[in-house]
Amino acid sequence: MNSIQASIITIGDELLIGQVIDTNSAYIAQVLNKIGVAVKNRIAVGDDKTAIIEALETASKKSNIIIMTGGLGPTADDITKPLLNEYFGGELVIHQPTLDHITDLFVNKHKRPMIERNRKQAEVPNVCEVLFNETGTAPGMLFKKEGVYYFSLPGVPHEMRFLTDKYVIPTIASAFKAPTILHRTLLTAGLGESFLAEMIADFENALPTNIKLAYLPNFGMVRLRLTATGDNEKLLEISINEQFAQLKLAVSDYLVTDVDDNMEVVVGKLLKEKNQTVATAESCTGGYIGHLLSKHAGSSQFYTGGIISYDNRIKTEFLDVPAPILQTVGAVSQEAVEQMAKSVRESMKTDFAVSVSGIMGPSGQTDEKPLGMVWIGVASKEKVVSKVFYLRFDRLRNIEVTANQAINLLRLLIINKI
Amino acid sequence: MNSIQASIITIGDELLIGQVIDTNSAYIAQVLNKIGVAVKNRIAVGDDKTAIIEALETASKKSNIIIMTGGLGPTADDITKPLLNEYFGGELVIHQPTLDHITDLFVNKHKRPMIERNRKQAEVPNVCEVLFNETGTAPGMLFKKEGVYYFSLPGVPHEMRFLTDKYVIPTIASAFKAPTILHRTLLTAGLGESFLAEMIADFENALPTNIKLAYLPNFGMVRLRLTATGDNEKLLEISINEQFAQLKLAVSDYLVTDVDDNMEVVVGKLLKEKNQTVATAESCTGGYIGHLLSKHAGSSQFYTGGIISYDNRIKTEFLDVPAPILQTVGAVSQEAVEQMAKSVRESMKTDFAVSVSGIMGPSGQTDEKPLGMVWIGVASKEKVVSKVFYLRFDRLRNIEVTANQAINLLRLLIINKI
Repeated sequence: MNSIQASIITIGDELLIGQVIDTNSAYIAQVLNKIGVAVKNRIAVGDDKTAIIEALETASKKSNIIIMTGGLGPTADDITKPLLNEYFGGELVIHQPTLDHITDLFVNKHKRPMIERNRKQAEVPNVCEVLFNETGTAPGMLFKKEGVYYFSLPGVPHEMRFLTDKYVIPTIASAFKAPTILHRTLLTAGLGESFLAEMIADFENALPTNIKLAYLPNFGMVRLRLTATGDNEKLLEISINEQFAQLKLAVSDYLVTDVDDNMEVVVGKLLKEKNQTVATAESCTGGYIGHLLSKHAGSSQFYTGGIISYDNRIKTEFLDVPAPILQTVGAVSQEAVEQMAKSVRESMKTDFAVSVSGIMGPSGQTDEKPLGMVWIGVASKEKVVSKVFYLRFDRLRNIEVTANQAINLLRLLIINKI
Repeated sequence: MNSIQASIITIGDELLIGQVIDTNSAYIAQVLNKIGVAVKNRIAVGDDKTAIIEALETASKKSNIIIMTGGLGPTADDITKPLLNEYFGGELVIHQPTLDHITDLFVNKHKRPMIERNRKQAEVPNVCEVLFNETGTAPGMLFKKEGVYYFSLPGVPHEMRFLTDKYVIPTIASAFKAPTILHRTLLTAGLGESFLAEMIADFENALPTNIKLAYLPNFGMVRLRLTATGDNEKLLEISINEQFAQLKLAVSDYLVTDVDDNMEVVVGKLLKEKNQTVATAESCTGGYIGHLLSKHAGSSQFYTGGIISYDNRIKTEFLDVPAPILQTVGAVSQEAVEQMAKSVRESMKTDFAVSVSGIMGPSGQTDEKPLGMVWIGVASKEKVVSKVFYLRFDRLRNIEVTANQAINLLRLLIINKI
């Protein structure tokens, strides 16, 4: 091993039967990457002693850093702590600060008597460094053996993130000298992956060997990422910036943003810069556009509110879509979404509005209106613009793509491109 | 290998730098599990020849079934197809039905000329069985070698799901005789994981060795899952049903549902049964409750719509929360959410309504109102009930937990438990 490599091991039967989606690995990979540590592989295993030990042995042959999550809870299926204790030849002892913390949580916060099971959570192997977990009851642990660092973190996402930020990253950054890895990411909209690839084929072929290009299509948009690896951070930065400038130029007609932001963050920034506001009128997305616009901190600066007009009656009573329109051309129509956008902008007194109405599936189609047909409308003081889309995904994906396309259309209106 | 075991290998640099979250593995694990195939491990590797081959070799020593996703796109970072072609000693040849399908997509649907890059997607190794992908341009592939089945699927989630359902599962079900794996899952609300564990400790200790209990805490609720493994399906079913009946009895005070449904699905079913409707009035969740209620098919039967009153002005103008209330006790108050629920139920003419107002973070707290404080209100024709919660997660998690607790409070009102 001459470079700094990490493996992530996620533990839990729920990961192997697909009952939960593993978001922890993605977070850990992201933050490791930022400090130049390449994740070589990610392994998910069950709550199974043999499988966990096998994963540890395999990982320790390839990586100097192993990060485990899961299996530290108070219940019988949580076997990671005793297993690691045995593996590293320790003895379980009470960690007093953790015990005090758990006691405080139960006595003062939960107002419930503490039970033996809770007390046991304060036990740690005496051969580890404890990563004090002020966000929960299961402490994190760090074991060191033959130059390899083994971190064990609880699987609860916000506790895992807290311990990663507070202990794991600083420890690794000071213990290992990692090469520099730099990323530059941009977002495009309006052109499919293969056409984009064709358009920038010459650029891609001419890239230096230490810079890689990746295509990340999602929600009908394509993210392009350059990754540069090297030792001299300054030279690397110059080199990737040069390439990134060329790439931006090559895709300029389709460029949404040159930072790694989601579409709704791009639009939020635009609105905040201009001190402008937006309202939503959603039928088929049922609140998902409102959620995207409001899920990031600071959104109350630009997001005023919205009407979820799931039932047609709400379109008429709250958004002034005339009943005859709904009876003739229907709710999934240009007329309906344009009126919805116009009405909600006026009634909520905002600068912009966005509206959607469509058939998300799996049923609801008619002869004229296929599954996946969706009308999107956007309105400003000056105009109302609408566009029809034909999507071909499942219901949830159709909702996600519709919301992203709607926010993109809003963006185009804000920057005067439509 | 005397049992049927599967490994899942997900391929793509984006998985190792955490740019995307892997939802494919969870789906594949779920459907394999249903037909009795245990997933032994899940490995994520980059777009890297050595790493992919190593993962294949390791997996083929443990598993008879290997399912790969990703790396089949039209761009240069998609290396899986040529790699598998070489690995299994084949030659790339055009698969005519796929070429016809791609041609049709471009000429008739996208109305764009086809380029060489698109044509190349129709190439497949002549040593594989092609899994025809009518949902996209990259065909799936099946290779067989020394009794091991290797499936390669595109990473685009809806294409992967289509091919898994149509080809992978039927092929495995007919080629392998798997043991029976049965799951029974229930959802509880109102008691933490450790107290629940204490309450059912005797039950857990008395479980037969072929039945395992798992705790899956999420959104302030805990899911409990029994998993039974055996050969005789009928006996296994009797045995797990017996244990599940006992488990339900043991947790009856906290039981939400005895099927593996999310909270919003439980509430949707209750409302559909009674032919009743609900409306939402959301401040801090910004549309997320509406999204949960409407993301499942058939939701238009019970979800009428909602007001997203992100700005206080909307609370007054659309939900009749008196301005003096907002100025004195504030928007995050019992008075505000009760009025919000009451107003939206009346104006949308529904049987029930749910409302929320809180401080999701990372800022916005005051001396009296800490971060994570959230009021939830629910209303029926007969009454309005509200409850305050103090959450301690990050913004997104607070939104998710709030939405789930709100829907749970709505459930309690619907079933007359509050």
